[in-house]
Amino acid sequence: MLKVVVWNENRHEQIDPEVREVYPEGIHGTIASFLGEAQFDVSTATLDEPEHGLTDEVLNQTDVLIWWGHIAHHEVKDEVVERVKQRVLDGMGLIVLHSGHFSKLFKTLMGTSCDLKWREASEKERIWIIDPSHPIVEGLGEYIELENEEMYGEHFDIPTPDELVMVSWFEGGEVFRSGCTFKRGKGKIFYFRPGHETYPTYYNKEVQRVITNAVKWAEPTKLPKPVYGNAKALELIKEK
Amino acid sequence: MLKVVVWNENRHEQIDPEVREVYPEGIHGTIASFLGEAQFDVSTATLDEPEHGLTDEVLNQTDVLIWWGHIAHHEVKDEVVERVKQRVLDGMGLIVLHSGHFSKLFKTLMGTSCDLKWREASEKERIWIIDPSHPIVEGLGEYIELENEEMYGEHFDIPTPDELVMVSWFEGGEVFRSGCTFKRGKGKIFYFRPGHETYPTYYNKEVQRVITNAVKWAEPTKLPKPVYGNAKALELIKEK
Amino acid sequence: MLKVVVWNENRHEQIDPEVREVYPEGIHGTIASFLGEAQFDVSTATLDEPEHGLTDEVLNQTDVLIWWGHIAHHEVKDEVVERVKQRVLDGMGLIVLHSGHFSKLFKTLMGTSCDLKWREASEKERIWIIDPSHPIVEGLGEYIELENEEMYGEHFDIPTPDELVMVSWFEGGEVFRSGCTFKRGKGKIFYFRPGHETYPTYYNKEVQRVITNAVKWAEPTKLPKPVYGNAKALELIKEK
Amino acid sequence: MLKVVVWNENRHEQIDPEVREVYPEGIHGTIASFLGEAQFDVSTATLDEPEHGLTDEVLNQTDVLIWWGHIAHHEVKDEVVERVKQRVLDGMGLIVLHSGHFSKLFKTLMGTSCDLKWREASEKERIWIIDPSHPIVEGLGEYIELENEEMYGEHFDIPTPDELVMVSWFEGGEVFRSGCTFKRGKGKIFYFRPGHETYPTYYNKEVQRVITNAVKWAEPTKLPKPVYGNAKALELIKEK
Repeated sequence: MLKVVVWNENRHEQIDPEVREVYPEGIHGTIASFLGEAQFDVSTATLDEPEHGLTDEVLNQTDVLIWWGHIAHHEVKDEVVERVKQRVLDGMGLIVLHSGHFSKLFKTLMGTSCDLKWREASEKERIWIIDPSHPIVEGLGEYIELENEEMYGEHFDIPTPDELVMVSWFEGGEVFRSGCTFKRGKGKIFYFRPGHETYPTYYNKEVQRVITNAVKWAEPTKLPKPVYGNAKALELIKEK
Repeated sequence: MLKVVVWNENRHEQIDPEVREVYPEGIHGTIASFLGEAQFDVSTATLDEPEHGLTDEVLNQTDVLIWWGHIAHHEVKDEVVERVKQRVLDGMGLIVLHSGHFSKLFKTLMGTSCDLKWREASEKERIWIIDPSHPIVEGLGEYIELENEEMYGEHFDIPTPDELVMVSWFEGGEVFRSGCTFKRGKGKIFYFRPGHETYPTYYNKEVQRVITNAVKWAEPTKLPKPVYGNAKALELIKEK
Repeated sequence: MLKVVVWNENRHEQIDPEVREVYPEGIHGTIASFLGEAQFDVSTATLDEPEHGLTDEVLNQTDVLIWWGHIAHHEVKDEVVERVKQRVLDGMGLIVLHSGHFSKLFKTLMGTSCDLKWREASEKERIWIIDPSHPIVEGLGEYIELENEEMYGEHFDIPTPDELVMVSWFEGGEVFRSGCTFKRGKGKIFYFRPGHETYPTYYNKEVQRVITNAVKWAEPTKLPKPVYGNAKALELIKEK
Repeated sequence: MLKVVVWNENRHEQIDPEVREVYPEGIHGTIASFLGEAQFDVSTATLDEPEHGLTDEVLNQTDVLIWWGHIAHHEVKDEVVERVKQRVLDGMGLIVLHSGHFSKLFKTLMGTSCDLKWREASEKERIWIIDPSHPIVEGLGEYIELENEEMYGEHFDIPTPDELVMVSWFEGGEVFRSGCTFKRGKGKIFYFRPGHETYPTYYNKEVQRVITNAVKWAEPTKLPKPVYGNAKALELIKEK
């Protein structure tokens, strides 16, 4: 059974009644709940726990990590970021949600600013499936429609995704690469755009389906870590 | 249980005793045998069967098709090629092996000549894993070594693969993109280089592992076929 | 000076007064005109000319071919399609415009159905630049806005583009991969979405800029054609 | 005229007579020399200059930066690395040579370890062209052969390149992705493998051709920087 850790900054939920009303158990609680039903071994971790709940012991047993953060990216300790990054390079799957695009973790894995346009105007988002062959969209229709979401618009300053799975249309006139896969080292990464804290996006069954599919897709591939450094020749090198 | 059809031209085996000795049950028989052990529902089809064994009835029940052909590519009927191509675009997985690079099927799905360099000189091939995050390489080491294989060398005239998983080193001085994935429509395609008919390549446990992994990877994604053609507006279009 | 041939089906212009009014010199005439100002050596060719104006002599001297077709794709002779395809594989640049997505030429180079959603409703299109590093977008702003265009919507059944340069937003609620590059053999291909025959799209200065930039980008790379077929070893192969 | 800065660590040249003999004017001097003949406006910068010769003033006027470093990566100041990275994201081209794979600059732009296998055994390298459509290989043949080079072998821990242009064969049995392009922000990056300090690799005319072509390819695309942050709606958003 895949071991999943849902990490959440968990600050909006404590300081903003509007968010607490939408997510009384925290965004992490809601996500953990539907993932648990999908037969994963799920636990949660949050910013205010010691080491943000992401000790070596926890990470070494984690197959797939889910990341939601927003207003406290700067409070995440650099050594924890580095530790998580190493685990991703060593094979742990990573699913970065919504405002996690600006987390230290995502930015250091991408190498770019990860900046974008944004607007909070309770507008309609329609997430079109661009790649119907991808396992992450199994069980969906042609698009996911969300009546109210924050807008994220291009240009999204990321490296070219390995796979572009979904593109969003926004009522206010923008488009966005909303479902993107990346590989870094032995690890698989999926960025999924929706999930503003004041909307009930993570209760949407299709959004849940995408995240559930993504966990399966991001399962670590089992093979030894490649050997790096000085290497003996495998074939005879001619004397000259 | 995934339904797999192993298609083989099955001509060398009939006319060449050297090949028959290596593959007494045919290349298709050997491949079907190890795939059956991997808990797939496996059957075979060959060129000389009516409609090459690839009727609509067979194809509609096939999840993943494996293709081996060489000296009789031109005998494969155009209507069967078209039928198989449509099934791939509709989601059936396809694994093209070795000399299948020059099949009508592969060429029409790629849009290029699929030409390459080749040499039969019983030389060493070392297939390096370039993408250790890919599920197709699960359970392997850093490379697969084959003491005797036919050489295929660059330039290999294919479109840029969606993913480059393996690259071969050849004793005679060439390199080759040996493990390549492509998406076409809803279907996933994997091209895997090794498997010349006079060498026991398909008895190699690591080669078997790659093909087995590839079958799992190529499983059709279940979602409705996208709707094409004239489409009503989803949003109000302003009068001008 | 780059030699450019603008190929146009040129049928709407002859049978539809509305189109003739917009493009009195034909779509090819308008495109040839602004490309000529950009200091290319430009000529035109149309469906009704012998061999559709695309003889070996013409093609062998063409650096970049531009293709517009719509209602008469089926009238383009297979041998001309094959001839043009070979020239692309041999290095000639190809720019496919708008409804050219359904041409025999584009479909055979892509290997997919190239199908899509469409709607003629005089709606707004906003073409967002997704890749601001690409030479094809030099001199543009963040997007191109077209007040009236035909809608093309996802899913667009093409292989993953080598580069995704632009994505369109449509008033009616769809998105579309509007600027895509592909490589096939030694040739570079650019698909550019806008250009319905009843709108003055090819008079838009930004659309002209994209096509002009694309011609420069698609310039053939000068190096010998790779050698295919049986190849002598470059290194000594050990006796066994 | 494109402005090119050739940056070199320039330490081997000072401490190792063997290297000084090969590159009496420093690796940067040799590269600057052949690039100057190619009609670029070329200057050099080295580690021991104030701010490593890479002040804002210098960088703001640089179109393409070339980077060679090896034994003193750790001496490059973090603020200079950050400054150069920002210029790349803002459009400056970057060509990273050989052991520059392990520079802070390349690692932070890639987001991975950039680790690899290596061996100094004066062995033969044959760099095969995988993408004959790419402008970086203009004027070459099918491969570049170097009698003596350091070996770099897979797995090379980089993100999937945007384009894979060349793959190396090594006498000792390894392969390597030797010519890779990446886009980061508005900037284009080319990694080119050969160039160990004890071999006269940068005098090789084909190696020089690749670097010269790469400078042209990496020319910044001229368009305004995308606007990020809070954005007003371009279309009316319905009240609910």
